[in-house]
Amino acid sequence: NDSSDSRSTKVQELNVYEINERDRGSPAYLRLSQKTVNSLGDLVPFSNKVYTGDLKKRAGITAGICILIKNEPEKKGDRYEAIYSFYFGDYGHIAVQGPYLTYEDTYLAVTGGSGIFEGVYGQVKLQQLIFPFKLFYTFYLKGIPDLPAELLGEPVAPSIAVEPSPAAKACEPGATLVNFSN
Amino acid sequence: NDSSDSRSTKVQELNVYEINERDRGSPAYLRLSQKTVNSLGDLVPFSNKVYTGDLKKRAGITAGICILIKNEPEKKGDRYEAIYSFYFGDYGHIAVQGPYLTYEDTYLAVTGGSGIFEGVYGQVKLQQLIFPFKLFYTFYLKGIPDLPAELLGEPVAPSIAVEPSPAAKACEPGATLVNFSN
Amino acid sequence: NDSSDSRSTKVQELNVYEINERDRGSPAYLRLSQKTVNSLGDLVPFSNKVYTGDLKKRAGITAGICILIKNEPEKKGDRYEAIYSFYFGDYGHIAVQGPYLTYEDTYLAVTGGSGIFEGVYGQVKLQQLIFPFKLFYTFYLKGIPDLPAELLGEPVAPSIAVEPSPAAKACEPGATLVNFSN
Repeated sequence: NDSSDSRSTKVQELNVYEINERDRGSPAYLRLSQKTVNSLGDLVPFSNKVYTGDLKKRAGITAGICILIKNEPEKKGDRYEAIYSFYFGDYGHIAVQGPYLTYEDTYLAVTGGSGIFEGVYGQVKLQQLIFPFKLFYTFYLKGIPDLPAELLGEPVAPSIAVEPSPAAKACEPGATLVNFSN
Repeated sequence: NDSSDSRSTKVQELNVYEINERDRGSPAYLRLSQKTVNSLGDLVPFSNKVYTGDLKKRAGITAGICILIKNEPEKKGDRYEAIYSFYFGDYGHIAVQGPYLTYEDTYLAVTGGSGIFEGVYGQVKLQQLIFPFKLFYTFYLKGIPDLPAELLGEPVAPSIAVEPSPAAKACEPGATLVNFSN
Repeated sequence: NDSSDSRSTKVQELNVYEINERDRGSPAYLRLSQKTVNSLGDLVPFSNKVYTGDLKKRAGITAGICILIKNEPEKKGDRYEAIYSFYFGDYGHIAVQGPYLTYEDTYLAVTGGSGIFEGVYGQVKLQQLIFPFKLFYTFYLKGIPDLPAELLGEPVAPSIAVEPSPAAKACEPGATLVNFSN
C-alpha cells in the first residue's frame, strides 16, 4: 500500500566525536559586528573532523555556520544558532539546526539527511568537552533503516583526554569510513 | 511493533508573537553587498523576543539569519530567505526555513525541533504587524504529542497595537516559560 | 484516527532546472576570508531561476547561501555547504541542505516545505551541467499528496545545451506557474 507510512519510529542512538585538529583553518571567526566583544552580526563558518564514537574510524567532517546571537558575560560564554551537517563518506550526511551554547550542553534538531540517512528526523545532544576543539554528540535518530555496525561501536566515554586511534587520525586503510568526507 | 510509524499527523495550532523591543542589538544589517540599495550579498542576523499567543508569558527568543535575496521597488519591500529557530525555554525549540517578504504574509517550512518539539514537521504562517518589530505566527505542527496548555492560551487577535502583558514584558515569576530562553 | 500517521511514503520524482541567466546579480561571492584562494570564511548568497524539468514553464527561483568549506586544488574545485529553498509560485517551496561540490554530483537533504510541499521529506540529486550556471535536480519526495501534472512533464535530458522554451524564458502567460516566484 503506497499511501501508508512505513517509516520506522524506532530510536537509533548514534555517537560521534567532532574534533578540531587545527589543520583546516577552522573556525573562521568573522567579526562583522565590528565590535570588540562577540556580538550579533558576527558569523562563524566552521568545518571539523568527525570520528565514530568508538574513535576507531575517521567518519568525515562537519560543515556549516554558527551565528553569534548573544554574548552572555554572566555565563562567561556565548549563544550561537548553529546550522551544519555531519558527513559520513559514502553513507551520506545528517543536517542539524539549533542552539550552541559555549557554556552548557544543548539539543539540536535533526532536519534531514541523505544516503542511509534519507528521511531521518529526531534530535542530537551536543556535549562540549574542550571548547571549541572537542565535542561529543549523541544522535537520537528515527525514520531510517538499521544503521551499519561500523557506526555503532561502543562509544569511548566522553572526557577531555579522549583521542582518536592513531590509525583513524592518520586515515589509514580500514580506519576510515569508505570515501570518508574530508 | 517498532517498525511502524506511530507519529501523530494531527495538526496542532500554536500561536506566538515575535517582538523586537530594540534592546538586543537586533537586527544586525550587514551591508556586505556594499551597495546603497538592499542587494543580494546583504546578510541580516537577528534575535527577537517571543511571547505566547495570549501575550501572558515570555516564551523565549528567535535566533537566526535573513539572507537578502532581492529588493523589489515596485512592492516597496524586500525578499529574504529566512533560516531561524524559535526558543521556548525548557520546552525546546522549533527550526524553520523559508520566505520572508517585508510586504506580505508568507508560509515557512518547519524543519525540525528539540524537546517537546522533537520530530516536528509542518509549516508556519508569518504575519507582519509592524515591520520589522512585531510579527504574529501561526504554526501548524504535526508529528508531536499534545502541546502543554500554557502554550495554547487563546491568542490575542493580531493588530498593530498588541503588547505583551506588563508581567510578561518584565519576565516576572509566573509570566515566563520555565527557564525561558533569553 | 487522529493519532496514526497517514503521511505517504510513496516516492515522487520531481525534476527541475536551475539556471543563472546573469540578470539577478547572483551569486554574490563575499570574500570574507580575505584570502586570494577560496577559503573557509567566504560566503556566497545566491538566487537563480527555476524551470520545470520539461523546460516549458518558469517555476520560480532558488534562494539561499553557500558556505565555502574547503578549496580542493587536486580536484580543481570547492566544497560548499548549501542551505537554500526552491520556490514554485503559489505551490509553495522546498527547503534543502547539504553538500555542493563544484566537481561532482551530490545528494542534499530535503528538510521541509510549504504549500503543496507541506510535510515533505526525502533527498535531491544535484547534477551540475555548466558551473555555476546550469544545474539539473531530481527530487525524491515523500510525505506529500500527488504532485500536480504541470510539475511532472517529461524532463528534457540534462546536457550543456539545454535551454528553457522561449515562452518560459520570457515568462509568457501559460508558460509560468501561477504567481511564479521571482
